[in-house]
Order: sequence, then C-alpha cells, then structure tokens
Amino acid sequence: MHAFRTHTCADLDKSNVGDTVRLSGWVHRVRDHGGILFIDLRDHYGVTQVLADPDSPVFADVEKVRSEWCIRIDGTVKARDPELVNPKIPTGEVEVFVRDIEVLGEAAELPLMVFGDQEYPEETRLRYRFLDLRREKLQRNMTLRSDVVASIRKRMWGADFREYQTPIITASSPEGARDFLVPSRLHPGKFYALPQAPQQFKQLIMVSGFDKYFQIAPCFRDEDPRADRSPTDFYQLDMEMSFVTQQDVFDTIQPVVQGIFEEFGGGRKVDTTWEQISYRDAAMWYGTDKPDLRNPIKMQDVSEHFRGSGFAIFAKLLEQDGTQIRAIPAPKGGSRKFCDRMNAFAQKEGLPGMGYIFWRETDGQMEAAGPLAKNIGPERTEAIRQQLDLGVGDAAFFLGGKPSAFETVAGKARTEIGNELGLTDTDRFAFAWIVDFPMYEKDEETGAIDFSHNPFSMPQGGLEALQGDPLEVLGYQYDLACNGYELISGAIRNHKLDIMYKAFELAGYGPEEVDKRFGGMVKAFRYGAPPHGGCAAGIDRIVMLLADEANIREVIMFPMNQRAEDLMMEAPSEPTNEQLRELRLRVIPAED
Amino acid sequence: MHAFRTHTCADLDKSNVGDTVRLSGWVHRVRDHGGILFIDLRDHYGVTQVLADPDSPVFADVEKVRSEWCIRIDGTVKARDPELVNPKIPTGEVEVFVRDIEVLGEAAELPLMVFGDQEYPEETRLRYRFLDLRREKLQRNMTLRSDVVASIRKRMWGADFREYQTPIITASSPEGARDFLVPSRLHPGKFYALPQAPQQFKQLIMVSGFDKYFQIAPCFRDEDPRADRSPTDFYQLDMEMSFVTQQDVFDTIQPVVQGIFEEFGGGRKVDTTWEQISYRDAAMWYGTDKPDLRNPIKMQDVSEHFRGSGFAIFAKLLEQDGTQIRAIPAPKGGSRKFCDRMNAFAQKEGLPGMGYIFWRETDGQMEAAGPLAKNIGPERTEAIRQQLDLGVGDAAFFLGGKPSAFETVAGKARTEIGNELGLTDTDRFAFAWIVDFPMYEKDEETGAIDFSHNPFSMPQGGLEALQGDPLEVLGYQYDLACNGYELISGAIRNHKLDIMYKAFELAGYGPEEVDKRFGGMVKAFRYGAPPHGGCAAGIDRIVMLLADEANIREVIMFPMNQRAEDLMMEAPSEPTNEQLRELRLRVIPAED
Repeated sequence: MHAFRTHTCADLDKSNVGDTVRLSGWVHRVRDHGGILFIDLRDHYGVTQVLADPDSPVFADVEKVRSEWCIRIDGTVKARDPELVNPKIPTGEVEVFVRDIEVLGEAAELPLMVFGDQEYPEETRLRYRFLDLRREKLQRNMTLRSDVVASIRKRMWGADFREYQTPIITASSPEGARDFLVPSRLHPGKFYALPQAPQQFKQLIMVSGFDKYFQIAPCFRDEDPRADRSPTDFYQLDMEMSFVTQQDVFDTIQPVVQGIFEEFGGGRKVDTTWEQISYRDAAMWYGTDKPDLRNPIKMQDVSEHFRGSGFAIFAKLLEQDGTQIRAIPAPKGGSRKFCDRMNAFAQKEGLPGMGYIFWRETDGQMEAAGPLAKNIGPERTEAIRQQLDLGVGDAAFFLGGKPSAFETVAGKARTEIGNELGLTDTDRFAFAWIVDFPMYEKDEETGAIDFSHNPFSMPQGGLEALQGDPLEVLGYQYDLACNGYELISGAIRNHKLDIMYKAFELAGYGPEEVDKRFGGMVKAFRYGAPPHGGCAAGIDRIVMLLADEANIREVIMFPMNQRAEDLMMEAPSEPTNEQLRELRLRVIPAED
Repeated sequence: MHAFRTHTCADLDKSNVGDTVRLSGWVHRVRDHGGILFIDLRDHYGVTQVLADPDSPVFADVEKVRSEWCIRIDGTVKARDPELVNPKIPTGEVEVFVRDIEVLGEAAELPLMVFGDQEYPEETRLRYRFLDLRREKLQRNMTLRSDVVASIRKRMWGADFREYQTPIITASSPEGARDFLVPSRLHPGKFYALPQAPQQFKQLIMVSGFDKYFQIAPCFRDEDPRADRSPTDFYQLDMEMSFVTQQDVFDTIQPVVQGIFEEFGGGRKVDTTWEQISYRDAAMWYGTDKPDLRNPIKMQDVSEHFRGSGFAIFAKLLEQDGTQIRAIPAPKGGSRKFCDRMNAFAQKEGLPGMGYIFWRETDGQMEAAGPLAKNIGPERTEAIRQQLDLGVGDAAFFLGGKPSAFETVAGKARTEIGNELGLTDTDRFAFAWIVDFPMYEKDEETGAIDFSHNPFSMPQGGLEALQGDPLEVLGYQYDLACNGYELISGAIRNHKLDIMYKAFELAGYGPEEVDKRFGGMVKAFRYGAPPHGGCAAGIDRIVMLLADEANIREVIMFPMNQRAEDLMMEAPSEPTNEQLRELRLRVIPAED
C-alpha cells in the first residue's frame, strides 16, 4: 500500500464499499456524536467523512487530533445510512471507519480558521497566507487563475504563436512608471532594472524575424499603493506580430479573450461582436476610455438646446470656448426622488450638481418636470426629449463646462444611474475596442505637448500627419474595454526611425534623448525593421473579472500588502553590511 | 489584398502558379544573373525566390535593395524550369516575378551577415543580437526552446499538475548563492531579493494544500561568470507534490523528461530505464555525481591487489587511513601509445601520473605489459585482470590516494578514455538517478560539519538517524544525471520542525538562526505541514543538450555576456541622482 494514500479525499464512492483504503489530508472539522468521532478529512480535491468509535483500535489517537492537523488514516469504506447521505459532495454516500492513524503534521492553535466563513483582517490573512490559501475561495481562485493562464497558452499556440522569454534583469527603460533597480555587484555603482513590460524586447524579437511572439510576462513597476493593483509585479499576456494591421491584431486576440471568458465565465453572457469605438466617441458617450457597455446609457451633446436659452448658467457657460452641455439619458429614472439622489451624487463627486428634466404624465398629458425645463421652455425641452428619445417615466441629467472638467464625473454618474435603475446587465461581459487614440495631449498648465499614451505607436498618416497640428494626430493605438476596465492595450508600432524621431521631437525629445532612452530598439530599427504591432492583456485583471473579485490580492498566490510588504516572508528587510559592501552602497539615514 | 502578405515565404508551391501574390520578408541574398535580379526573400517560415528583369515595372527599385532590407513585393507565381528546381526548400519549384515593391525597412551596412556561415566575435553577436537571431541556427534554437517549454507544460498538465506563479520580488533567502537585491523606495534602507529558486514558496504551496505544483520559474543568482551558466537569471521546471515518496517523484517526472528527449532528441536514443545509483557508488564507479553513462567504463576498487605488493608507491599509500587504489578499465585500450597518452593526460590534470597495465598476445600467450605489472608480479596482475574482466588488447589505469584527492581527475580520465576509445555512444541520452546523498560533509580544513547539499531534505531515518554520526546520515535527496550533466535536483523535504531544528543544529545553526533565515516556511510548518517533495530541472541545460550546444548563450534569446552585461540594451547603467535619492542610497566611490 502506498505510504500516504490509495485515494484522494474526492475519490471514494459506493463502488468502494468494503475496500480497505488509505487517505491523507487535513482535519477540516471534528464532531463528537455521542462518543463517535466524525472527521471531515480534506485535501485539495475534496472531503471524505471518516469516523472512529470506541471499538476502533486507535480511538484514543483519533481523539487527540485537532483542526488542520495533517493526518494519514487507514480504514474500511462503509456505505452511509440513506438518511445520512450528503448529496452535495461526490463522496457523500460513504464514510471510512478508521483502523489506523498517523499524525503527519500537528497544528498549533489557529490564527485563522480554514473551516467556515469567518472574516479576518487582511493583515492576518497575509501573515498566515498558507492557512488562508487552504480556504475554499482561495483554492478556487488560484486554480481558476492557473487554468485561465493554461488556456491562454493553449489558445495562443493554437493561433501559431510561440512563447519566448525575455530578460528580467535588464536595462532601465522609462515607460511611464518607476523602475525597480537592481544594483550590480560586478559593476558597482551601476544598476540593472526590472522591466516595466517587455515592450522593447518584443519589438526586438520582431526585428529579429520571429514573426509571432507571446509571453505570460511578469512586469515590474514601483508604483504607489492602490487597491486594485499589485505594488510590485503583475502578469501580462504580452503578444506581438509582424506584417500586420490593427485589424489583424484584433482578429487574432479576440478569439483568445472571448474564448477564455466563455470557458471560465460561469455561464455569464459574453459579447461576440466587439464594436470599435473611437476615443473621442467613448469620451462623449461614456465619459471614459474604458466604458462599461453593459450599461446601455449613451451620453449626448445637447449644447445647441441650451445656447442662448433661459437657463443662464449653461447659456453663459457656452459662451466660453471649448465648453459643452452633455446629457445623460436615464430611461425609467423619471421621479423627483431619483433625480435628487443623482444630483446629490454629483455634488458628492465635487460638481455643483446636475440639472435634470424628467417626464411624467399629468392629466393624461406628458409633462416635463424640474426647474431646468421651466427655464428653457417647452420647445427646447421637447427638442431635447426627442434627441434623447425619451418619454414618460424617463429622465435626463445635464452637465456643462469643459469636457475635461466634467467627463470623469459624468462617466461615474452614468455608471451610478445604470446601476440604480437596473439598466446594467451584471450577468454579462461586454467588450469594445477603443481606437483612434490621440498621439499627443497638451498640458493644461504649461501648454507643453506630450505623448498621451504609448510613444512607440505609429501615427495614423505617418510622417505627413506629424507636419500638422500634433493634437489632431491619431495613433494606431487601441484598448480593449470590458465591463468598465481596460483589459488590453496595444498598438501598431512605429518601426520607421524618421517618423519616430519626428514624433519624439514634437513631444520635446531630441534625437540624442531618444537614442539614449531606447538605444537597443533604435539601433535595431536601422537594420531592416518590419512593420509590427501587438498588445498586452492584464492577467490579474482577467482573473479578477472571472472570479468576480474586486481586490487583486484575492487572485495572487502570495501578494504583497498595500505597503508593498510581504508579511509572511518579511520582505523587504535590512541587508547585511557584507551585502552593501559588495554592492558598494551606503544607505543614507532618514532626515527626520 | 492584405497590406503585407497573402502568403508566408514558405507557402508557395506549384499549385500557386499563375497566382498574384504578396510577400513580405527580408532580403536574404541578391544575385544578378545577366541583368536578371534574383532575391531570396526570407521570413520566419522559409525562403522564396523572387526575381525581376528589366521588363519589370519596378526594376529600378528592385535594383536598390540590399541584404536585410525588409520589403514587400507583389508578383506572379511562375514554375521554375525543371533544371532550376531546388528540392531542398518547400518553395523550390516556384519563383515570383516582381510587379511591385515597397521598402518596409531599409538596413544600414551590416556588422554581421545573416546569410552564410561566417563566424563573428561574441561581442559583435551580442551587440547586434537582433541580426544574429535572424540566422538559421538561432532561429532554430529559439523555436526549439519555445517548443520544449510548451511540451513540458503540456506534459505536466497531463500529469494533473497546475502551474502557480510565485513572487519574483520577495525576501532574501540564503540558499548557497548570492541574492540579487532590490532596494525598496517605500521602505528606504530595506531591500527585497530576487528568488534564487522558488524553494520556500513551493513548499508553502504544499502547506497551503495545493497537492501538485509546477512552474517554469525564473531563478536569479548573482554568480561569478562561467561559460555554461547565465550570470543573472535562468529557468527551471520547478515541481512539488504532497503525500509522496521519492519513488513517486521519479515516476512522475521520468515520463515528462524522457518524453521531451524522445520528442526533440532528433532520433538520438533515449534511455527508458533509469537506474538508481547511490552517491557513493557514483563516486566509486564514475568519480562524479553526474556521470556520463553513455560511457560504459566503471571504475573499481582494486586496493587489495596492491596492499603489501611490490609496487611500493601504492603499497605505502595504502598504509594511510582512508586511501584506496582505483582501476579504470580500458577495453581495447591495450597499446603502449594509448597508455602513455592517458598517463600524460593525468599529468596535465595535476596528478603525478597514472600507472597502467595492458594485455597483449606474445607468441600465442597473453602477456601483461607495463612496469606496474612487473612490480606486483603475475599473480596479482592476473587477479586484477579477472576482477576487471579484461583480456588481450585491453588496458587498465590505476590511481591511488584519498578518493577526494583523485576522484575528479579519475572521472575526467574515464571520460577521456571513453571518448578516445570510441566507447562512448554519442548518439544517446543516458539517464540515471543519483540517490542517497550524504546530508553532511566535513570541512577538510576546519573539521566543521556542514550541509553537503540541500538543508531542507528529509534525513533518511528521521530524527533517530540524527542522533548518530552526522557523516553517516543520508538524505532523501536525488539528482538526475544525463550525459555528464546534472539535469534535475530534488528531495523529499523535511516537513517536521523537530527534525529540521536538529538537522540545522548538527550543522551549527541554532533555532533562532533557522527562524530568522527561513521564517516564512518555519512558521508554516507549525500548522499541519504535509509530507512533500519534488525537484527542479534546468530548462537551459535541457535545451543545450537537445540543441547540442555547449554555450548557454546559444539557447537564450537575449543573454548577458560573461561580465553580466547586456551589450544591446546597455545594462547595467548609471542610475540618475533622482533614483538614488528616492531609494536613499549613495554609491561609495571605488578605492583604487
């Protein structure tokens, strides 16, 4: 007989009745029923009920075991009495009568119970992660994550991609976030950096002629704490292809991502047609470049109805350049109570409030209610209603000013309205490509032009487009939005050096600066670079959506806390003097 | 028509004759045959011949292209004349007559030719890695590596393992080599470390109840340069299982590794029976714990034949404690010339020389030749011959002293003899498990006892065994040797804290030291640790063996040079003052 088990704790059923078996696992729960001890024995695969009564030769030993002891038992499989069958578990028809027991690992008093649903502070959960991970939810989340990543790989292989590993100890490559640095012992005073993403390497792989690349790639960013991201490292599905257009990338990655959501979405609806929405339209309609399309509300520009109207605030606002009045239609939101609540929401978000109109029936007639309707008069009100395609029982909210000042709150209000009115279909994964991102943006304060997103993207229209107004230049750059999150980001890359130097020049970077920052890639582009493009998808985010978790630490095996500390392993920690000496480093004392 | 290609450069054959096609790729080679330009157009998949003559509308443009330019051509597929068919490539029956051409990326003058077999200094190859990678050998090695890793994953999944990712930015965990440190910005003065291996994490995953784990894991060791290892990071197939014995691990991993070698070994023979050889026998027979079993030579202890014999050097040697005379049998090595060459080899390796006997036929009689045979006389010589099972035409070499002093050279001599005599079957992958490693070794100089290998291994015999002579204690620890390399290393782990503290105590580490160094794991072992074990296989090494490469840089996409520098990306480099300030670090100037 095997030293530890003949079966897992999920294996036994009626067909095993009478068998002598050996099981190993953890004591999930012990119950004493009038002198008979029942133990739920748990392993990774399931739970089996084992029992001992005073006739058992090892009853005294069984009496000693406590929760989470790891034990091995030998015993005989018995059918349970019909009324004691547990149909919820595969082993529910049997139990094992204990004839021998071995304690494989005792457990001290538990800081965190594995059995049951008790909540614990995150600090306790992270410090005793090995216990927390035994709980059902984390077992499920971790196996889900593993299965999702495995399925991604299979799908990418199926699409003729190969996975290539890129360096982790490498050069600093400023891509927006802070690098983690690694001091070099062989070259004291010099530092490596951990890659923020394998961006340059995957482009170099294309220049090296590999045609199709992907990697489940660890990425490292020294970022300030935030609830929904890891403060140190995270994983991306990183991919790149040569000789492709933007549409080729979409056609390649959609089946992979859609397939993953269909496979692991637990039956939730998965969009199969992925609309392409321009960045400008997304901002207009949804107030964000990562819209939640499960919410059907689309905002609209209704400026013309307020220009010169009796609603002085908006009318005056519109006299300024670059201002706009935008409406958030709220079908079935036509009650004063609801409208006031949304108004209060906007105020909480820092706006003076949201004007609204709602339509009700009074004496068999449709009536537009609310102070705003009175101010602009019935004709304008009716024109608005018609533009928004609303009717009795519906409402509309209005925000005005420079879009950049109100768009974020408008987007939040849209989300709030969709949720409150039950318009948002929570049982669905809704996808859209956001395309045509502007290449540049102007700093409101300094007036300086800088890249708005990825500086390596190919500008639409190439070199010629860069001769005109930079703020009008769009990039072959795209995001995939899913349920309000950015799931994927990518671009067709700028593989032409003349266009790249010009693109950086517009953002204020001279050629020396480009050569210095992106030396490896720039050098490679001098030797026959192919057109190429790709994208990167956030693995943690995908798993969070599938597992329906809001906290990234629920889908990572051993996460840092929000202060970037590993409480279990006690990292970071003080280096030894010997280590610092070898690296020729000195820590400067704090000034406080 | 697609913007870049209707086919890859490996797609076209006779069935496409007459088709209008579009191809993209690199100019592999240009030939001018009497005014007709032939271009071998290359992509990742293959090569297609394209041609243009002065009738071609774009002849002038085609004339301009040079090696490694990236181009797109449109043209018509034509059958080649029968005498011009190239049967070596899939597209060898056709060529494409160019009607349009677009230069996608020009190339400057090449520091390294992609076409042809010219050798370049490693510095050039690494600096222009993106060109070197376009060459056939590296294209093949990189796709091999990718396919090997993919196949390993499929095989591990097939064996019911899941892949779980463990932290890369984590705690310092002294495991023999130096850690790479990562300074923390949020906790200035404290440092993270990159894992030398996920050893503690995989054990924690077992304590967390996951039963089976694997990972293609990056490992980081700040090691001094050596030709056959990467100075920074390398990849392991890391695996661990709960509730297993050593044999279970063997039975699990053998099909995976054997399968990989059968799949990618290019028809070379792959051992299917993997012998288990104790560490002591391996040292005796092969002079190493990573024997090359393709070489059939087994060394033997022949001390008894020399004790008190007329060969004074050996006889006197044997009067000292712990000495031994060992024979290396050399079937078919029975010539003075060969014996003298091997003797010279031993001298070059720093030994005074190797005594030898060889057997020849003189006047129809077998005769043992060489001075050594004369010294010990015919009876002892014959006894040696019988023990070694040698005959006419064979030889034997002899080394004496303390095994630790001569074993390494003996092992090398064995290899040399095997190679020289053609006994070593180079067309084969020969595997053996080396088992029963001693837990401890004694420092020859200080006399101190320390762990000889992995301190986390379970000692055979458990706590009881640790009460006796530490040097007699064997561990449940094992290596897999393949063709003279250590391919895998693993152990059944010590999951019992009392045994662990005792094991460390014997090596001079008190419990506080254990708690401090391995805090996370020690804490976990207090809460119901299961018995578990596993192993780790070197990915780079496996690919090197399969690709028949001796230099690890031939199987890594973007390797460091031997000074741990990335010549292409220019790492490591000077940090900015801002970066150092944020980390509160100062670089101490060199003292020279």
